[in-house]
Amino acid sequence: MAAGDFSSQKLAVVGLGLMGGSIALALKDYADQVIGVDPNPATCAYALDRGIVDDVAQDLQSGVSDADTVILATPVRVCLDMLEKRLGSYLRSNTLLIDIGSTKNDICEAMGQLPIGINAIGGHPMTGKESSGIGVADGGIFFNRPFVLCDTRRTTPATRLRAKALVKAIGSIATEMDAKRHDKIVAGISHLPYILSASLVATIAQQADSDEAFWELAAGGFRDSSRLAGSNIQMMADILSTNTQAVATLLAMFRVQLAQIEAMLISGEEDKLVETLEPVRQSRLDWTKNYEQKR
Amino acid sequence: MAAGDFSSQKLAVVGLGLMGGSIALALKDYADQVIGVDPNPATCAYALDRGIVDDVAQDLQSGVSDADTVILATPVRVCLDMLEKRLGSYLRSNTLLIDIGSTKNDICEAMGQLPIGINAIGGHPMTGKESSGIGVADGGIFFNRPFVLCDTRRTTPATRLRAKALVKAIGSIATEMDAKRHDKIVAGISHLPYILSASLVATIAQQADSDEAFWELAAGGFRDSSRLAGSNIQMMADILSTNTQAVATLLAMFRVQLAQIEAMLISGEEDKLVETLEPVRQSRLDWTKNYEQKR
Repeated sequence: MAAGDFSSQKLAVVGLGLMGGSIALALKDYADQVIGVDPNPATCAYALDRGIVDDVAQDLQSGVSDADTVILATPVRVCLDMLEKRLGSYLRSNTLLIDIGSTKNDICEAMGQLPIGINAIGGHPMTGKESSGIGVADGGIFFNRPFVLCDTRRTTPATRLRAKALVKAIGSIATEMDAKRHDKIVAGISHLPYILSASLVATIAQQADSDEAFWELAAGGFRDSSRLAGSNIQMMADILSTNTQAVATLLAMFRVQLAQIEAMLISGEEDKLVETLEPVRQSRLDWTKNYEQKR
Repeated sequence: MAAGDFSSQKLAVVGLGLMGGSIALALKDYADQVIGVDPNPATCAYALDRGIVDDVAQDLQSGVSDADTVILATPVRVCLDMLEKRLGSYLRSNTLLIDIGSTKNDICEAMGQLPIGINAIGGHPMTGKESSGIGVADGGIFFNRPFVLCDTRRTTPATRLRAKALVKAIGSIATEMDAKRHDKIVAGISHLPYILSASLVATIAQQADSDEAFWELAAGGFRDSSRLAGSNIQMMADILSTNTQAVATLLAMFRVQLAQIEAMLISGEEDKLVETLEPVRQSRLDWTKNYEQKR
């Protein structure tokens, strides 16, 4: 069975931030009606006003009932809270429920506890923007990007097919894997980089207290390395606290690499340093060529 | 005395890479003749062919003799080697000698040993590009960027004025400071970020050996955090090995920040984590607003 075309009579997007707004826009043409659910009335008004959604609800129950597709696009902790509390009782049978949170294990576990009949699957589109909020929502951010799908105990073969059709509709490439594997990968490629970025900025901020020139002279290298430190903190805290073990593991592995480079540097083993860094450079160049440039 | 207008009858740029080519282009209209000095005949031919320089020399002595301004734009070790060997004897008296290397202490020390009569000053334009080589030379990369000037024992008041005029001519903003302070700052804002970036890529490469999906799923956060790992290794090894002490110091400070964040994460102190990360985020946003966006 190939993934068919995605369509929905009533699609509810819960959480109208950058990601929720963007997926609402990307699925506009595939749904008869798109409902945006958000507790913030100003956000709802904005989404409606800009035509990002067809209708809005501040209340979860009224927003998701009758929907045949529900996309959870809130921070991870909010998502877990909804799943563990009332969401299951609000959904009609056969609804496709998918989240787009950045960690998958806890969410997929919680989805597995939903009433039988709800077709739930975990999702994570590997895309984003530096800024957040519905004001920067953009239906194009999913194009040609991987979109991870993780089975739950409420995932049927039909759930999987429907989710893949949704992924295809927004232009992403479905990548199926189990939640633990996903969480380990994102710990390395996303959460570890965030922690390094924040620790770097904390280090420079401390130095800049006594010498403002640290900020004045900081240029492109610092800009790129420090960008993730500007991420929304509550969102990151949710992500880190639902992926602590994998992040701690990757951090330990990172520390080994860092210590090796530091030892060569301090002992003045320049040839060995070059020998170690050259394949690292090649890995980065290969990644750009094989993955980044093809998108 | 304000910095006057820069002019040169014969300007020699030693080392025709990205930086040398770019500064040659930026100073084109301020010099009667620009000589490019590079041991690579293909590089010389390219620079001449594209009009980046008016004339070329593969031999250092013939390139710099008679020049009233000499800019050293080679990797740091090559620069040190020239300064410690024959360069001083090739230069005519009253020549303005300035380098644009990324570390300043060793170079400024070596400049201080030059014959009296040579007007030498250390320089470091805080700009660059991801790619290297004369093929991407661009006279515009200096515009509105800080350009650090560091005194040497061969810097006279006139040297300083002339160097400032040169900095002004290429559109940069002169920032005077001593070499040790410069080296500590760049250890933090540039060399530490490089080491973190390389260690991150090494960590991911190790994981990707058993799971290629680490590369497949890596997205924007990884791209920015890993960019510096793609830097030219010989250039970086020169930089690190001439700034070992400051880099090791900043690394130790970084490790303290990292350990604090890690401890909060592992112990599940989410509130404390948010409280720690929020001012870090604010520092990054303030830097963007106060410095990066004004350029």
